[in-house]
Amino acid sequence: MEGFNHKDLLGMEPLSVKDIDLILNTAESLKEISRRDIKKVPTLRGKSVVNFFYEPSTRTRTSFEIAAKRLSADTVSISSGSSSMVKGETLIDTAKNLQAMSPDLIVMRHSSSGAPHMLAKEIQASIINAGDGINEHPTQALLDMFTIREKKGSLNGLRVVIIGDIEHSRVARSNIIGLKKMGADVAISGPPTMMPCNAETMGVEVISNPAEAIIDRDVIMVLRIQLERQSRLIFPCSREYSSFFGINRKHLDKIKEGAIIMHPGPVNRGVELSSDVADGPFSVILEQVANGVAIRMALLYLLIGGAKSGDIV
Amino acid sequence: MEGFNHKDLLGMEPLSVKDIDLILNTAESLKEISRRDIKKVPTLRGKSVVNFFYEPSTRTRTSFEIAAKRLSADTVSISSGSSSMVKGETLIDTAKNLQAMSPDLIVMRHSSSGAPHMLAKEIQASIINAGDGINEHPTQALLDMFTIREKKGSLNGLRVVIIGDIEHSRVARSNIIGLKKMGADVAISGPPTMMPCNAETMGVEVISNPAEAIIDRDVIMVLRIQLERQSRLIFPCSREYSSFFGINRKHLDKIKEGAIIMHPGPVNRGVELSSDVADGPFSVILEQVANGVAIRMALLYLLIGGAKSGDIV
Amino acid sequence: MEGFNHKDLLGMEPLSVKDIDLILNTAESLKEISRRDIKKVPTLRGKSVVNFFYEPSTRTRTSFEIAAKRLSADTVSISSGSSSMVKGETLIDTAKNLQAMSPDLIVMRHSSSGAPHMLAKEIQASIINAGDGINEHPTQALLDMFTIREKKGSLNGLRVVIIGDIEHSRVARSNIIGLKKMGADVAISGPPTMMPCNAETMGVEVISNPAEAIIDRDVIMVLRIQLERQSRLIFPCSREYSSFFGINRKHLDKIKEGAIIMHPGPVNRGVELSSDVADGPFSVILEQVANGVAIRMALLYLLIGGAKSGDIV
Repeated sequence: MEGFNHKDLLGMEPLSVKDIDLILNTAESLKEISRRDIKKVPTLRGKSVVNFFYEPSTRTRTSFEIAAKRLSADTVSISSGSSSMVKGETLIDTAKNLQAMSPDLIVMRHSSSGAPHMLAKEIQASIINAGDGINEHPTQALLDMFTIREKKGSLNGLRVVIIGDIEHSRVARSNIIGLKKMGADVAISGPPTMMPCNAETMGVEVISNPAEAIIDRDVIMVLRIQLERQSRLIFPCSREYSSFFGINRKHLDKIKEGAIIMHPGPVNRGVELSSDVADGPFSVILEQVANGVAIRMALLYLLIGGAKSGDIV
Repeated sequence: MEGFNHKDLLGMEPLSVKDIDLILNTAESLKEISRRDIKKVPTLRGKSVVNFFYEPSTRTRTSFEIAAKRLSADTVSISSGSSSMVKGETLIDTAKNLQAMSPDLIVMRHSSSGAPHMLAKEIQASIINAGDGINEHPTQALLDMFTIREKKGSLNGLRVVIIGDIEHSRVARSNIIGLKKMGADVAISGPPTMMPCNAETMGVEVISNPAEAIIDRDVIMVLRIQLERQSRLIFPCSREYSSFFGINRKHLDKIKEGAIIMHPGPVNRGVELSSDVADGPFSVILEQVANGVAIRMALLYLLIGGAKSGDIV
Repeated sequence: MEGFNHKDLLGMEPLSVKDIDLILNTAESLKEISRRDIKKVPTLRGKSVVNFFYEPSTRTRTSFEIAAKRLSADTVSISSGSSSMVKGETLIDTAKNLQAMSPDLIVMRHSSSGAPHMLAKEIQASIINAGDGINEHPTQALLDMFTIREKKGSLNGLRVVIIGDIEHSRVARSNIIGLKKMGADVAISGPPTMMPCNAETMGVEVISNPAEAIIDRDVIMVLRIQLERQSRLIFPCSREYSSFFGINRKHLDKIKEGAIIMHPGPVNRGVELSSDVADGPFSVILEQVANGVAIRMALLYLLIGGAKSGDIV
């Protein structure tokens, strides 16, 4: 079994097809630990994982914390709210100070694109990007890809559409890069103001009408509309968004048999997704969450416990 | 030894006398772990406990966290303050997302009565209600009952009085249900605006004058006055409350020999309880806190580790 | 090997030269644990450490939490922000309630001088003062002394200068007491409004001009200027502070060969220290942070695991 030759996971771009296969295969073998009666293996005993979240995110932080604990790593959580470390100190200083305490890995979420990359250059600990601005959210993409592969057997040749604010979505960006690498065909749909200018160079087709975009797709990935960003006025109101771009029951007739509907959560019910669709038979939303723990266990393992990949469990 | 056949602990109502005896007996055998030099047993190793507090409560959260750690369970704490999970997401969605990460047990405090019950129906993890609105606070009642039993030998036939804002107290409600089940005689006292309308159906006697209510009681349980709720104007001011309903040194003469004075904490010194009484020989307030850890260890053990009840320690 | 006969670490004053040597020697032997692949020893398994921070401090809290976990102690963190325990409850009540949960050690930071001392008298758990008002910050002084000893071989006879707001600095106070005990010569420098009135009784020389104060010193310790306290107007502005009292490249020529420049962090770059000095070859700032973990491991070990001092690692 070949190893994972990366110090950090900053984005999907640096990952090869082999890397992605290795991550997904590792997640597959680690997934069953969370179904055991004793949900813990000693693999990362004595490793220190710091969860450093400049943006609040209970969901992602909890997922990483549970993943680390199931592998017996020690975790310390730092949030910017409670962090005097952040005040009057540059990000680099904060990072170097953390590094001085010898953590093995830092999980970082930051509102500025590129923040984890800057950290990674300065310090020896491995960095996992848990979302940086509107740039990338690679662990979300990997858990999405894991969920798709689990449901459809393979990613190669699949027809995927992503619907929503593509331009400002780090989830979309990471998924597009990853899915294209793995041979999937990716289209995007949503309001014109939310489409990226460089769709062509990203290799994705833009389909204005979501009702049309969902036809004959194996995977329909619906993004969360960031209602809190509405002040930017890139769309008039959530009701209008819903009627033009929301996915609801009336779309289900047009969906390919066996297709899956995904959402990174939390769902704005009645906005980008109606409740009957979010809770319906096509939805794999909660499986995405469960797979998030497995993917994060895999990444922790590959980045800081990977030397002895034979004895995971 | 018979088992504990409940998935959740939501309130005192569903518990049988046998259940309560089992919980108190289990707490009794677990209590000495906290007095050991090495305060830890491997009983719940590999179990994940999530502390989910929508209302802040350092005291209760710390008690649960210490209880879980002394049984070797892994803990993750989520508070609504730092929780983006809460924003724009229904409670059910939050619960299902948590469930997807396979926790074994969720400890939940919420300002809405019935919130933990709703959760419990939707998810497979065990739920412990750590206080829901003005409904119930069963772990407080159980630690109170444990403390009483420890001091008085038994609950059956004891004469208990609860003094304070009974109507809006989840501590009072849970204690009344539990104590009545175990055969205690329960009276209540406090300002008329704070007495429940259904005292009769609850099987408790209302005694307007606390000076009279405390006579010949084995247990005097004084509730915390929620000064932060004063805006509701159900009582004029804390000084007036204190002079009419506060328990102070001048009451001690009338108290039965061997009686105990309880309070769920934190005490408003000089309001519902004077300092000399809170710190006096009748007070068991700090023993209640210590017993809180034991009761919570017992509940964690019975709910998620109970199969092998022979090998607790 | 003689033991450490203290229940608490409240300040530098009660420590003897032997005590300080023991702490520094213990830190020296524990330091290499943080460089291991498996950064964890079972020394404090089953011990409960509570981090109780009334003032926010990610840096110090993280250092203690990592130290405790590397010794296998269980940790619970309480911050005043999220603490209902604090509201309407005296500090003594809070402490007694915590004590009732049988922690082995409480690490406490508080904005009032003397708060940890009050706690220590009331409860059985060991207390470590992690900074109390403008009084003391002994773990910072010990990590500073450890860093100096590591660099210079010994503390005895060394010439140290501390520059900044000495009067309001708990770091300065603890260092002065500790360094004097160990035989160092200590001078202070900074704006007249920031010099203590009792410099003479503290046994330190006041040198008004920092450019002069740094000459022929083995150790130059620069304090953080608390910009957030500027409203007190004890100095006009940070630019003026910098030009008169900041240490920058132009001072480096005058510095003794082999001298070290220290700072407790976080650095206000360009105010009390220029970036080229903070990051330059004289600076040991990040080593101070690394040594902080070792010193805190040593103190946890000596206070609550010290009986069997032969089997640390």
